[in-house]
Amino acid sequence: MKTLTPQPLTAEAFAPFGDVIECRDDNRILDINENLTKRHHDLATISTLSSEADDLAKPIISIFASRYRPFPITLEYLERHPLGSQCFIPMHEKPFIVVVAKPELDQITLADLHAFISNGKQAVNYHPNVWHHYLLAPFEQSLFTVIDRTGKGKNLEEQKIQDGIILLHSN
Amino acid sequence: MKTLTPQPLTAEAFAPFGDVIECRDDNRILDINENLTKRHHDLATISTLSSEADDLAKPIISIFASRYRPFPITLEYLERHPLGSQCFIPMHEKPFIVVVAKPELDQITLADLHAFISNGKQAVNYHPNVWHHYLLAPFEQSLFTVIDRTGKGKNLEEQKIQDGIILLHSN
Repeated sequence: MKTLTPQPLTAEAFAPFGDVIECRDDNRILDINENLTKRHHDLATISTLSSEADDLAKPIISIFASRYRPFPITLEYLERHPLGSQCFIPMHEKPFIVVVAKPELDQITLADLHAFISNGKQAVNYHPNVWHHYLLAPFEQSLFTVIDRTGKGKNLEEQKIQDGIILLHSN
Repeated sequence: MKTLTPQPLTAEAFAPFGDVIECRDDNRILDINENLTKRHHDLATISTLSSEADDLAKPIISIFASRYRPFPITLEYLERHPLGSQCFIPMHEKPFIVVVAKPELDQITLADLHAFISNGKQAVNYHPNVWHHYLLAPFEQSLFTVIDRTGKGKNLEEQKIQDGIILLHSN
């Protein structure tokens, strides 16, 4: 049995997998609403690819209500969405964990996995085809707003991790 | 000086203005993630209209970081977006207030305004052309993820309220 320790989520470390949606000084920031609000503008790339000419693929907004999953967590499968990005917005400022692997991998092992902890004020947006574990909310029952794709075509692939692992909290 | 008292936000009362994105038993609910998660599916309509044939209008994801605005609040202007919907997702489970008026109004007065309080687990999505006050976060400093439109064309109109008012908290 192997272990994996999540690292703090940063835009730089997460760049191969997607966008980190957060307030950062290097965002494009606009002062709006009589200077009561700072708009951190256009922080992610929403993708909704079409597999057929008549496919009315589009982004949709859903809520994922997730139950507590305690440590240690055994990971068995990763999934990915070839036709669309998938964005997870935490609605409660509680940390959550994302586990990802690069899209070009055919056979995923522990050495290919990257685990990050959001500080709860960071949303993530997986790019199409990025392997990821389903949402892990090991600290609290939680609500996430999710922006992903509806449309024709097969937009879900799964892959068994070659060597099942336990994911440990970093602290 | 007149006053306005916000009412609890419900999908039914808010229907003329947009979508309430929340967990509700009458949503389409899918059990996913090994039954750890309930997906409340496709809860809002994202609109990104085009004013010209070559307009690559699309939805974008931003963060609004809003400073505290204490009661009582004097309202002066409403705004609207003719070419796109605008969705506000609270990232912290704190209440916030939305003030709206119906899109067909040319001259808005107090009698036309509707004020609602989100319980903090409810996001809202204004439909195109719905008059609304800018985001009011009178309880906390707050972060909202916002899904709205980028593209060509004039997507902002403003209108002065005929009789400026004070908005009071309901309790």
